[in-house]
Amino acid sequence: MSMQEIVIKFPDGTEKKYEKGISLKEIAESISPSLKKKSVAGKVNGSLYDLERCIDENAAIELYDLKSAVGIEVMRHTTAHVLAQAVKRIYGEVHMGVGPVISNGFYYDFDLDKNIAVDDLAMIEKEMNKIISENFEMKRVELTRQEAIALFQSDPLKLELLNEIASGEVITAYFQGDFVDLCRGPHLPATRFIKSFKLTHVSGAYWRGDSNNKMLQRVYGVAFATKQELDEHFHFLEEAEKRNHRNLGQELDLFMFSEEAPGMPFYLANGQIIRNELESFLRKLQNLYDYKEVRTPMMMNERLWKQSGHWDHYKENMYFSNVDNQNFALKPMNCPGHMLIFKDKLHSYRDLPIRMAEFGQVHRHEFSGALNGMLRVRTFCQDDAHIFVTPDQIEDEITSALQLIDYVYRTFGFEYDVEISTRPDDFMGDIALWDKAEGALKNVLNKLNYPFHINEGDGAFYGPKIDIHIQDALKRSHQCATVQLDFQMPEKFDLTYIDEENKRVRPVVIHRAVFGSIDRFLGILIEHFGGAFPAWLAPVQVKVIAISNQAHSDYVKEVTTLLKQEEYRVEYDLREQKLGYKIREAQIRKIPYILVVGDKELENRTVNVRQYGKGESHQVTLDSFIFNLKQQVENRNI
Amino acid sequence: MSMQEIVIKFPDGTEKKYEKGISLKEIAESISPSLKKKSVAGKVNGSLYDLERCIDENAAIELYDLKSAVGIEVMRHTTAHVLAQAVKRIYGEVHMGVGPVISNGFYYDFDLDKNIAVDDLAMIEKEMNKIISENFEMKRVELTRQEAIALFQSDPLKLELLNEIASGEVITAYFQGDFVDLCRGPHLPATRFIKSFKLTHVSGAYWRGDSNNKMLQRVYGVAFATKQELDEHFHFLEEAEKRNHRNLGQELDLFMFSEEAPGMPFYLANGQIIRNELESFLRKLQNLYDYKEVRTPMMMNERLWKQSGHWDHYKENMYFSNVDNQNFALKPMNCPGHMLIFKDKLHSYRDLPIRMAEFGQVHRHEFSGALNGMLRVRTFCQDDAHIFVTPDQIEDEITSALQLIDYVYRTFGFEYDVEISTRPDDFMGDIALWDKAEGALKNVLNKLNYPFHINEGDGAFYGPKIDIHIQDALKRSHQCATVQLDFQMPEKFDLTYIDEENKRVRPVVIHRAVFGSIDRFLGILIEHFGGAFPAWLAPVQVKVIAISNQAHSDYVKEVTTLLKQEEYRVEYDLREQKLGYKIREAQIRKIPYILVVGDKELENRTVNVRQYGKGESHQVTLDSFIFNLKQQVENRNI
Repeated sequence: MSMQEIVIKFPDGTEKKYEKGISLKEIAESISPSLKKKSVAGKVNGSLYDLERCIDENAAIELYDLKSAVGIEVMRHTTAHVLAQAVKRIYGEVHMGVGPVISNGFYYDFDLDKNIAVDDLAMIEKEMNKIISENFEMKRVELTRQEAIALFQSDPLKLELLNEIASGEVITAYFQGDFVDLCRGPHLPATRFIKSFKLTHVSGAYWRGDSNNKMLQRVYGVAFATKQELDEHFHFLEEAEKRNHRNLGQELDLFMFSEEAPGMPFYLANGQIIRNELESFLRKLQNLYDYKEVRTPMMMNERLWKQSGHWDHYKENMYFSNVDNQNFALKPMNCPGHMLIFKDKLHSYRDLPIRMAEFGQVHRHEFSGALNGMLRVRTFCQDDAHIFVTPDQIEDEITSALQLIDYVYRTFGFEYDVEISTRPDDFMGDIALWDKAEGALKNVLNKLNYPFHINEGDGAFYGPKIDIHIQDALKRSHQCATVQLDFQMPEKFDLTYIDEENKRVRPVVIHRAVFGSIDRFLGILIEHFGGAFPAWLAPVQVKVIAISNQAHSDYVKEVTTLLKQEEYRVEYDLREQKLGYKIREAQIRKIPYILVVGDKELENRTVNVRQYGKGESHQVTLDSFIFNLKQQVENRNI
Repeated sequence: MSMQEIVIKFPDGTEKKYEKGISLKEIAESISPSLKKKSVAGKVNGSLYDLERCIDENAAIELYDLKSAVGIEVMRHTTAHVLAQAVKRIYGEVHMGVGPVISNGFYYDFDLDKNIAVDDLAMIEKEMNKIISENFEMKRVELTRQEAIALFQSDPLKLELLNEIASGEVITAYFQGDFVDLCRGPHLPATRFIKSFKLTHVSGAYWRGDSNNKMLQRVYGVAFATKQELDEHFHFLEEAEKRNHRNLGQELDLFMFSEEAPGMPFYLANGQIIRNELESFLRKLQNLYDYKEVRTPMMMNERLWKQSGHWDHYKENMYFSNVDNQNFALKPMNCPGHMLIFKDKLHSYRDLPIRMAEFGQVHRHEFSGALNGMLRVRTFCQDDAHIFVTPDQIEDEITSALQLIDYVYRTFGFEYDVEISTRPDDFMGDIALWDKAEGALKNVLNKLNYPFHINEGDGAFYGPKIDIHIQDALKRSHQCATVQLDFQMPEKFDLTYIDEENKRVRPVVIHRAVFGSIDRFLGILIEHFGGAFPAWLAPVQVKVIAISNQAHSDYVKEVTTLLKQEEYRVEYDLREQKLGYKIREAQIRKIPYILVVGDKELENRTVNVRQYGKGESHQVTLDSFIFNLKQQVENRNI
């Protein structure tokens, strides 16, 4: 190999020789003009590189375009520089802080006397677009410390950052036209590569997050590879905001919070109806699957939590109390209680599997800043089950647990992904049992034809697990169900059963949750359905309204009574209000069915049905409405 | 009036003159020979008197026979003396302790060298019967302290008691034949008046209950006015023991306790089924009565409990925790949580009444010695409701609450008594409102034609209340339901609603519980039904057994599946065991229906039904069995 040549290795494993000092851009060009055109940055031996930066040694490379996560991050970073340049052009005397990439976009912190108002953002955007069309190259320059200090002498914040770059580290700056910023990069080749951005808001931010420092002005923006993605982002935000479970929780009287118990939900009547429906739905299903429901105390002696290992691994998240001058802990999990129940009786292999389920109210501390409506609370009801099995039963029981989970999730219209997490480095127990268990998990998923990822080494120390991530209507992912094998809990509680040969042996425990937390699941459901619950869950299922209170109120009451007798949740509205007002109000409450009745309906024993979100209303006989509602509620249609 | 005469006033108010020094016996004789014959003791100016004791002043008197509680107590006391006399006769050198009356009987403590064994009780009883038939008169003698010391000089324990009789108090002893005991009396006229007694057991007891003192031997007995009552007592004990909910709880796998959480029940699968049935029964009923179910946090900030007054009145019974470095209390009641919910929204008089219900798990400390299975626990689920009303709605809402309670109690076959407790001395609030409220309670009970007692001045400081005492199958009384008016809670939480005149005014709160504690109610139900629950509550409703597993197991499974599809709790037994064994086992588990199927049943599509506790079995078609079961379960027949 000539001294002038280096070997470049591509992601597909092929290798090619190039002249030393060649740039990623030139390599891309050597492959195809289109690759050159769409590439915006790359990776060289694991480090991010500008497209034009020289490569001086043999290297494995990757190229990124704006469809890649790396490419889009680079674009967002360059957009932040363009923002800074625009602000400097407009405001003149500005000291710049930092301008990093954040989720979906970027921000830049500025120290300037004039206040940047939200109204000013359009003007700044205009200047940014001008800079983009001026299409400055983003030039990377390596500097000595003295050169850097000279370059940023009028930028005290930058000098402060410079000070903290360790000696020996390369100091780089990026130029775009007359603008320069101290920055590690990489950046787009030129400003014109920026596709679609928008400034969103301004806020105050202490320099370096320290409230002893000066308050800077932080301008936020988002940026995407296409206008369509940008539009989708704002549409998503709007939709997510409309569906925000905290707002809907308040509007629909589902739940409330109080400063007397932060992070601990108060279920209002409407929320409690849904909660009860969820609980009884799963209870029925669990009965079909031969689960045995139990109920264990809310707090137990500290020594039990030491025995279970929660004391060592979970103490920081637990709440405590005192009973008879002994320390008690509020249960953060139901496992130890279930172990005590199992241990209370002698078991034979004939008794297994024992599927012990509980709707168990647990308490787990979260920092107050981490609380988030129903999605992160300090107490929740876990739909917990522990299945005590012989090793030979693992596969069947995992299968049955996954089928139950599948049934539940399909009921709500959730798609989901499956992940297996395998033996970690700090595993406990017998490798052969681990292998058998991991094999069983994979077998089951293969037999069920479920695609799954494997997170190697990501299992709990006590056993491998399957986690299930559901996707809500906005394609957001939530980890809810889990199926975990546990070889340790039976050891810690010295659980045994008598096997076929009359020997005491250890059962395996399968931890299983479907909703995970009923409270969090409700939060997810609220956002998934945007508060417009399917009939079986809706707090009020039917609203009956008269066209004329005077003429039709008897029929309204009759219809209501009939539906009540069938145990539907029905209300009538006979207030002295206009028909349109009443219909609108019922729609705001997202009631699945509005029945309007007038002369025609009274005469024909029909109702005029408006289904929520379905546009036109239609006439049906009262009997057929009730029949259809029954079908829908019993089948839990969505 | 002559100096020799005194005026005797009878319970009916009539008065009569007698010679001074006359005895109750002579007064009785003066009225009728039968009265003399049946009287065993009396009261003179409020003090208990022997029948033969002289009356020296004007007096109001009462006479007691063995049908009265006083009479029977006197008999039990005399029986204790007879026991002591018998023990002295048999064992000779005995030092006597005390011999008081206790519930249903008496005991006597002895200090003697020889051990009294249970086997010896028959011999002692025989001697007692001899003493009874010897028919000694019970002679009361007043003694000076010196006389008493002389009389009991060889009885150190009696001398110790003597020492503690204050100077000035009358010292009395009772003689029966050659036996004498230091005693205040009164006693039966003679030993022959003792009707029916039995010695039950012997135990050790420290002299005067102090473990620093000597251990004495305590002989227990029971005594009744008739042999029949004695027999009934033993029958009751036997029945109560058979129905003991702790034993049945274990035998029927209903619940367990653990030393890791003393006083906090663990519901096993069978118990949880019953618990869920109770909860959903009441939930359905509450829906009918337009209650709104809510769910509030298990613990809340200490300051809330200070505001509610629980801190001042209930702190000793509360458990505490710590959240965000603030003191929290585990809720002992649900009221404050419900007040916060009410307060969270603005209310108009049109919104009232608001009936807010919760199945709320509360924690209340009890001393470990006071715990008693499910009947006294440290955490329980209260079926709590708070009804927020205008003063005008009090009467209707009390009525509706009582009707709901009546429906529930009749479902279980409970008779019940009603008590009103009225304004106490330390009442808070406005007397006019109290009067109105008490009037409302009485009005309601009168309208409903409920007989009721009044406990004057026994209401809570915050309002008058109605308590309801149910009687179980063994005629034992349990206070369960309560309906309480509360004028204070709305003050403390500054609750208001907007009235017809657009003014903010205070609602009244009605606290209401039906079961009281679901856990305790379950304990009562277990004893009430002796574990043989009606079909709608039974953990397993139907057991299906084949006459021959080989020939009939398909039909057994078909019957089982059919019943399962109808959501009944059904099991089959196809183990290799004899038919008789399987039937007995199902009967021990008190399963309401055992279906035995053989050739005949298979051929005719019938089942052979054995209803628990109903003797003979009978053939019915499978369809009609299911139809009848459905009726029975839906109507909650007992």
